Amino acid sequence: MTVSELRPSAISPTVDFSMDGVQHGFLRLPYSRDDSAWGSVMIPVTVVKNGEGPTALLTGGNHGDEYEGPIALFDLARTLKAEDVAGRVIILPAMNYPAFVSGTRTSPIDKGNMNRSFPGRPDGTVTEKIADYLQRELLPLADIVLDFHSGGKTLDFLPFCAAHILSDKQQEARSFELVDAFCAPYSMKMLEIDAVGMYDTAAEEMGKIFITTELGGGGTATAKSAGIAKQGVTNVLRRADILKGGDRSAAGRTQWLDMPDGNCFSFAEDAGLIEPLVDMGDSVVAGQVVARIHPIGKTGALPSDVCTKMDGILCARHFPGLVKAGDCVAVVAVAV
Amino acid sequence: MTVSELRPSAISPTVDFSMDGVQHGFLRLPYSRDDSAWGSVMIPVTVVKNGEGPTALLTGGNHGDEYEGPIALFDLARTLKAEDVAGRVIILPAMNYPAFVSGTRTSPIDKGNMNRSFPGRPDGTVTEKIADYLQRELLPLADIVLDFHSGGKTLDFLPFCAAHILSDKQQEARSFELVDAFCAPYSMKMLEIDAVGMYDTAAEEMGKIFITTELGGGGTATAKSAGIAKQGVTNVLRRADILKGGDRSAAGRTQWLDMPDGNCFSFAEDAGLIEPLVDMGDSVVAGQVVARIHPIGKTGALPSDVCTKMDGILCARHFPGLVKAGDCVAVVAVAV
Amino acid sequence: MTVSELRPSAISPTVDFSMDGVQHGFLRLPYSRDDSAWGSVMIPVTVVKNGEGPTALLTGGNHGDEYEGPIALFDLARTLKAEDVAGRVIILPAMNYPAFVSGTRTSPIDKGNMNRSFPGRPDGTVTEKIADYLQRELLPLADIVLDFHSGGKTLDFLPFCAAHILSDKQQEARSFELVDAFCAPYSMKMLEIDAVGMYDTAAEEMGKIFITTELGGGGTATAKSAGIAKQGVTNVLRRADILKGGDRSAAGRTQWLDMPDGNCFSFAEDAGLIEPLVDMGDSVVAGQVVARIHPIGKTGALPSDVCTKMDGILCARHFPGLVKAGDCVAVVAVAV
Amino acid sequence: MTVSELRPSAISPTVDFSMDGVQHGFLRLPYSRDDSAWGSVMIPVTVVKNGEGPTALLTGGNHGDEYEGPIALFDLARTLKAEDVAGRVIILPAMNYPAFVSGTRTSPIDKGNMNRSFPGRPDGTVTEKIADYLQRELLPLADIVLDFHSGGKTLDFLPFCAAHILSDKQQEARSFELVDAFCAPYSMKMLEIDAVGMYDTAAEEMGKIFITTELGGGGTATAKSAGIAKQGVTNVLRRADILKGGDRSAAGRTQWLDMPDGNCFSFAEDAGLIEPLVDMGDSVVAGQVVARIHPIGKTGALPSDVCTKMDGILCARHFPGLVKAGDCVAVVAVAV
Amino acid sequence: MTVSELRPSAISPTVDFSMDGVQHGFLRLPYSRDDSAWGSVMIPVTVVKNGEGPTALLTGGNHGDEYEGPIALFDLARTLKAEDVAGRVIILPAMNYPAFVSGTRTSPIDKGNMNRSFPGRPDGTVTEKIADYLQRELLPLADIVLDFHSGGKTLDFLPFCAAHILSDKQQEARSFELVDAFCAPYSMKMLEIDAVGMYDTAAEEMGKIFITTELGGGGTATAKSAGIAKQGVTNVLRRADILKGGDRSAAGRTQWLDMPDGNCFSFAEDAGLIEPLVDMGDSVVAGQVVARIHPIGKTGALPSDVCTKMDGILCARHFPGLVKAGDCVAVVAVAV
Amino acid sequence: MTVSELRPSAISPTVDFSMDGVQHGFLRLPYSRDDSAWGSVMIPVTVVKNGEGPTALLTGGNHGDEYEGPIALFDLARTLKAEDVAGRVIILPAMNYPAFVSGTRTSPIDKGNMNRSFPGRPDGTVTEKIADYLQRELLPLADIVLDFHSGGKTLDFLPFCAAHILSDKQQEARSFELVDAFCAPYSMKMLEIDAVGMYDTAAEEMGKIFITTELGGGGTATAKSAGIAKQGVTNVLRRADILKGGDRSAAGRTQWLDMPDGNCFSFAEDAGLIEPLVDMGDSVVAGQVVARIHPIGKTGALPSDVCTKMDGILCARHFPGLVKAGDCVAVVAVAV
Repeated sequence: MTVSELRPSAISPTVDFSMDGVQHGFLRLPYSRDDSAWGSVMIPVTVVKNGEGPTALLTGGNHGDEYEGPIALFDLARTLKAEDVAGRVIILPAMNYPAFVSGTRTSPIDKGNMNRSFPGRPDGTVTEKIADYLQRELLPLADIVLDFHSGGKTLDFLPFCAAHILSDKQQEARSFELVDAFCAPYSMKMLEIDAVGMYDTAAEEMGKIFITTELGGGGTATAKSAGIAKQGVTNVLRRADILKGGDRSAAGRTQWLDMPDGNCFSFAEDAGLIEPLVDMGDSVVAGQVVARIHPIGKTGALPSDVCTKMDGILCARHFPGLVKAGDCVAVVAVAV
Repeated sequence: MTVSELRPSAISPTVDFSMDGVQHGFLRLPYSRDDSAWGSVMIPVTVVKNGEGPTALLTGGNHGDEYEGPIALFDLARTLKAEDVAGRVIILPAMNYPAFVSGTRTSPIDKGNMNRSFPGRPDGTVTEKIADYLQRELLPLADIVLDFHSGGKTLDFLPFCAAHILSDKQQEARSFELVDAFCAPYSMKMLEIDAVGMYDTAAEEMGKIFITTELGGGGTATAKSAGIAKQGVTNVLRRADILKGGDRSAAGRTQWLDMPDGNCFSFAEDAGLIEPLVDMGDSVVAGQVVARIHPIGKTGALPSDVCTKMDGILCARHFPGLVKAGDCVAVVAVAV
Repeated sequence: MTVSELRPSAISPTVDFSMDGVQHGFLRLPYSRDDSAWGSVMIPVTVVKNGEGPTALLTGGNHGDEYEGPIALFDLARTLKAEDVAGRVIILPAMNYPAFVSGTRTSPIDKGNMNRSFPGRPDGTVTEKIADYLQRELLPLADIVLDFHSGGKTLDFLPFCAAHILSDKQQEARSFELVDAFCAPYSMKMLEIDAVGMYDTAAEEMGKIFITTELGGGGTATAKSAGIAKQGVTNVLRRADILKGGDRSAAGRTQWLDMPDGNCFSFAEDAGLIEPLVDMGDSVVAGQVVARIHPIGKTGALPSDVCTKMDGILCARHFPGLVKAGDCVAVVAVAV
Repeated sequence: MTVSELRPSAISPTVDFSMDGVQHGFLRLPYSRDDSAWGSVMIPVTVVKNGEGPTALLTGGNHGDEYEGPIALFDLARTLKAEDVAGRVIILPAMNYPAFVSGTRTSPIDKGNMNRSFPGRPDGTVTEKIADYLQRELLPLADIVLDFHSGGKTLDFLPFCAAHILSDKQQEARSFELVDAFCAPYSMKMLEIDAVGMYDTAAEEMGKIFITTELGGGGTATAKSAGIAKQGVTNVLRRADILKGGDRSAAGRTQWLDMPDGNCFSFAEDAGLIEPLVDMGDSVVAGQVVARIHPIGKTGALPSDVCTKMDGILCARHFPGLVKAGDCVAVVAVAV
Repeated sequence: MTVSELRPSAISPTVDFSMDGVQHGFLRLPYSRDDSAWGSVMIPVTVVKNGEGPTALLTGGNHGDEYEGPIALFDLARTLKAEDVAGRVIILPAMNYPAFVSGTRTSPIDKGNMNRSFPGRPDGTVTEKIADYLQRELLPLADIVLDFHSGGKTLDFLPFCAAHILSDKQQEARSFELVDAFCAPYSMKMLEIDAVGMYDTAAEEMGKIFITTELGGGGTATAKSAGIAKQGVTNVLRRADILKGGDRSAAGRTQWLDMPDGNCFSFAEDAGLIEPLVDMGDSVVAGQVVARIHPIGKTGALPSDVCTKMDGILCARHFPGLVKAGDCVAVVAVAV
Repeated sequence: MTVSELRPSAISPTVDFSMDGVQHGFLRLPYSRDDSAWGSVMIPVTVVKNGEGPTALLTGGNHGDEYEGPIALFDLARTLKAEDVAGRVIILPAMNYPAFVSGTRTSPIDKGNMNRSFPGRPDGTVTEKIADYLQRELLPLADIVLDFHSGGKTLDFLPFCAAHILSDKQQEARSFELVDAFCAPYSMKMLEIDAVGMYDTAAEEMGKIFITTELGGGGTATAKSAGIAKQGVTNVLRRADILKGGDRSAAGRTQWLDMPDGNCFSFAEDAGLIEPLVDMGDSVVAGQVVARIHPIGKTGALPSDVCTKMDGILCARHFPGLVKAGDCVAVVAVAV
């Protein structure tokens, strides 16, 4: 059926997106269940608006175990003043709130991976209902969208801001400009093989300027990685002329990277105890053994080797000490 | 009852600790349960023996989510040759094997924290039975004991090797000598407030030279941290004249630290999203805000501050992005 | 696809709905699963038929933790004699039988909320298959439908029987007449905001006379509330001339109420320990604090207030001692 | 071993019980576990002290699903001023804090029933460590002890305050005097058959004046039942001359009851759907059917009857709609 | 939408199905989840190819708790040499690999019953993605398909090979010829009442020669039942001229059976302890009591009888010692 | 402490063991828990008494997933008449009732293995309280004790009755006489290596005549194995002159076996898919490969062999299709 035929979103906001000033409230999503017949999921939201101007939609917690974005956004939501803004800033620090509360990538309610749930469904699962609200209510309000990611509990990333290679080259150029403005240590030009269901794709197909990040991982944040996030969102809002008094001096000081094709990924074919042989940011060559997987059922058994398939630098890796067959062990990126 | 009255250990080893050569086998611990009426826990063990000489007992996986030790010990077990040894090396890379397999601090069978289970009980839980076997069978065989720890999934540590302040100053001196030999980036003199139930205490009370480590954390290992473990165990075996051809050049290149009293710990009194403001190894002063805890139920609410109580450097911290009231947030150590 | 294209229901009844007399049997729904490859859900059903006449379909356990209906219907099923009936009575005391057995609102098999699962699907989940059978097999047999509800484990209600405001005013009038006949202490005229997926809607759209109840809550029943249910179903069957010897003297002794719009609901925005300040049936005025939510993480902290938005009487309330953000705390109704 | 040989309690309070004024803090109990290696249980505590005078120890949440006590005590802790006190009031609104947070009778950590865990153990489970702290640290500070109970999620009680028949008749008389002062609608003289492990017994054996309550149940509280608790604690503190300005007019307006022997209890011998035939406070005679248990596997089957064994009034009952064989269905008390 | 509009399968094979020789590899199915953000399910696969000739697709583990097929196929995959083959053999010993690893009928990931999941969906659950890959990629490569089943943990079967009554009588005849070649002790002509979603149906609708088995049950295998499977697959490959040197002497030595209609099944209407009164292969007559169900709540209660509805031999039965209402207790087949 | 110092058992029987006639009732064991504050475990018990004479204590369900004993004993309890008895028969068909209801070896409440819980504790876990009641109340009443076992869900046994080699040769001879009377297909002389905690030992140490069985396994029963149990208990009661009209013709028709030492057991050292190469009752020679364990992570990998250590016949085996390292795979017995 077409979008216009869909029933209204199940979500009621307790804020008015068209009102000037600072509002802290909730997206209230009714969720009837065994432990609350007339319960709701309450997703925190802040709107800061001051007159006319562009709208930035800032989201964290798309995956619930990634923390730099929520830190930067809970902090920004608390401190941003209406008078410093020209236009509107909508802040959802924990987009997939049930996942964020439980500290898991996906929602504990429906195992929904928010970033594979778009465009969502108004009569679907809780995760699909949130996606539907973003798709039909919040994304249309936005001019620029910044969605924070990190590696979560099972991956680690070099800190980068990123945008996609797009067919609309003007849209692409404006996106890369904001990536440059974010000014993370690294910046990535991404080509998605399978973009179906992503929030990124939903925003880009509406013509929005969409940027995203990977800022570390392991289910933690450091003073350094949280600082990159906090500075990055400020840099972007200034470049977009939504935050007043923009200082654009940071631009150009980032290292651009590229993940050219599927050969950048190396997967485990055995389970066991993983011994990394290179660390994040190290240079590697094609065929290099980057990790060994020790069988854990007995001592004295040969480990299996995990090798790279291309030259570059290690930009992402498996995080937990144990690895399962099929896990992505290492990702190699190329400096551009 | 006295030790001599205890029934025999439930564990049968499949190796002969008195035999020369390399043996890979198991400590077999019968464990009758719903999914195996006549099942067993099979704890991998390696014994490498060559003639007379001192015995080193090397253990990892005392806590099941700490990986540098198991990596170094599975690797050593596979590669150590009898002819390189003078005496005996007993290797248990995953002491609390059920915990290690499940990637958790404690045993999934009985929630047993191995390092609070000594001296164990032959008719106790699975964890207590393992402790009892170490207490009554393996520790008596050992001259030196090296027990690997890291922070696990919920803590992160500066990499250090450590030994305890002991009343027997000769035993203490020989222990610190091996800590020095291990040559981690940092070395720690520890004074346990409550040493009851620890493997450390069990070994020390028998007069053994006991050293331990904390080599990182977060439930992962890096090429760097695993390298420290692998080099450290070799260094120690060489200094102890158990591994032949000892090169003692590494000694003296470590930074000694001290955790003087309970004021080195700062605990959370609120739950929420933790924003670290200093990183591992950073200098701090007493009263400094080292982390903020953002409430996650709503935006716009004030975070609570976590402060240090003494000057020093940050030597350990809470790892996960969310924190609970009562969690240890930061530990400060003093350089000596 | 259209209804006529649907595959047949997966359910086989062990009773013959067209046969005179009393039959106790099952709706057998095949359910292959790990603990029974060729297992079934067996939903108890009773049919009492005597010659020609209207059919009443009586259902309890639409939600599995609501007990007045099942008590009245297990009792009626056991005691009703064919000779006392003119027409047919079909009794399903525990419609969502898996939910009823587990004492939960929704089905433990698929988390299905029966009352949001209509019209169901013959190839869907267990809950959807039951809904489909009611939609395509049982509802078409019925003239009048009485579906029992109570508040369940998490809500409490004033005892009332209810029917919906309908566009077909003749259908509406006959429904309200049966509500009046039921003669609960209170009677409610309901306007559903979102009726999609409800059993109520399914029945009403087929032109059936549909009435429902809320008869208490908290996951219990009392002698008093069970008595209201038992007397009510008898009253209704008599008024409908299905139960012979109808005594209609009860009519007109109920207090009619109305829930005019969404302002009748008050939701929690904080989690904690709830302190009710008014009780069921008490009069309230708009803006009155009806409950306080005490934070439970520490003593000495300010509670948050929950206020009404309209004048009326408290007709429903949150039941458990702890409350979560988003839970409905209080419902206000207006006497008519 | 004797008490004096026990190791110190694992708990550190963040308040100073000997300091004048109002302090809100925690009993911090270290609890190392998979999700927090150096975590703690933080049990909220308030101390209000003003000069010399007797000490009242007020506790709620002994069982975690009983709410009148916690409501009264969180409220009192927040509002009590030092200047209104002569002596000391120690308030633990949620004694078995882990149970209270999870809304369950027992602790989710160790399934510990706090009221069967005394005198506790400093090296035991979390529940036993809390009991030990109360036994060795808090009870010795107290002159009078008021421990709040209600029926919890699975029982319902007539509201009463109670004390035990004691061999020390002076202690008993002073206890009954405080029960009378509490002035609940009912008051109970209790003779425990098996008092081993109870907090009550621990306090009484130290010679403390100990009173307790049952104030409702079902895992909820009402405005009325919470009001009884709030008024009762104030009444008791006034009678004890700890709260200044005592108004003793309430005394004597309570109905005294007695549970003479084991015949007051009726147990279910079948599982099923319970239909209560009498309600709380109703008069019953010996042999009366007070509830029927309907089999739920099929319709048409005979229910089994539950009968009383003595004359009296129904003072407690099984709460949930389903009952299991062995559950206590009804308790009869005798007016005195 | 039509098949041609479907997005490509999510699965990447690590083997090349068109290459000669023996290849052991995986079907890699990306599966992002909480414990591995970039994880995959790795389904073992072996391809043995030698020149031109027909293709046999051999599958086990369609249900994860049925073991004769996986034993025969892991064994065949390891031992089959390319030079012994004329054509191609594709071996999937554990088709629903997640179910097989957990030893359960259905997948622990999505509770998917593989044999009710066809034709699958490329954007569906993990089980549906595997079905889709078989439907669109592997079945089209095959000429003959042999899918191994047994009774699993909850059913037991007489050992038989089977094929379906088909409308295409030439396809049916070639299928029965292969059943005869398999030469299990029994052979079955099956008429499916409801074939929707089955792998069987998917293969047959493409015109493939499809045979299946039931070779025992109870979640175990014996030397005898595993031997039937190993010999059977060899017999079939020889008859199909894919395995060279075919010895066809086994044909004709099997007992053919028939399950004529739904009367062959007897279901439990009560839960309890099941006492079988006849064993597998015993002759029964219509109306015979084949099992008694003892109530387990009390001693002295009457058991309920389970009777057959037709004459024949017992060919399948409920396996576990306890039975639930709705479980299939006995299946009767007729010798042909 | 000594037995005489123990507090009384927590269990109340609803039957009078000294009364003549047939009584069906319960051992009621109070068990307070989250879902029933004043709940109990109700263990079914039957007493059949007729005048003076010896007492037989008959027990099944010592392990909850073993079914021949419960079938024979529920059947006997229902059918035994007082007039057929000379003395007393006490029947506990499901001794560890919580385990029996959940179909598991151990109790779901406390994971207690009943047969390692003797002598039990009156203040212990539920399983320990049951053991204590048997130890102090029921065993003292008995002259002969018959405790039924089978292999349960994870083991399979040749059907045998057994008694222990005892130091009291008169007690041993009388025990073996009853084993002979039971007349299972096989009979076993058992020498326990570690008899601590067993029910057997508890009974034998009181001088009781104790016999036990293993009658199959896999968590099922067959008509044949249930028949052995039913006939066996009748044979034993007749031989003991408790059941009147004893026919002793069965004696002497059993095959006696012996499990001489620990070499009769073979354990798995690898996990995987188990392929049995011999079946129950087959003859084996020392060193024979009796099973192969196929790795399941990939095809093409070598299986590991499991070998016997002595000549004899296979008398027990691992049942499930998957095996874990440490599981007992095969047991060899010697015919005597």
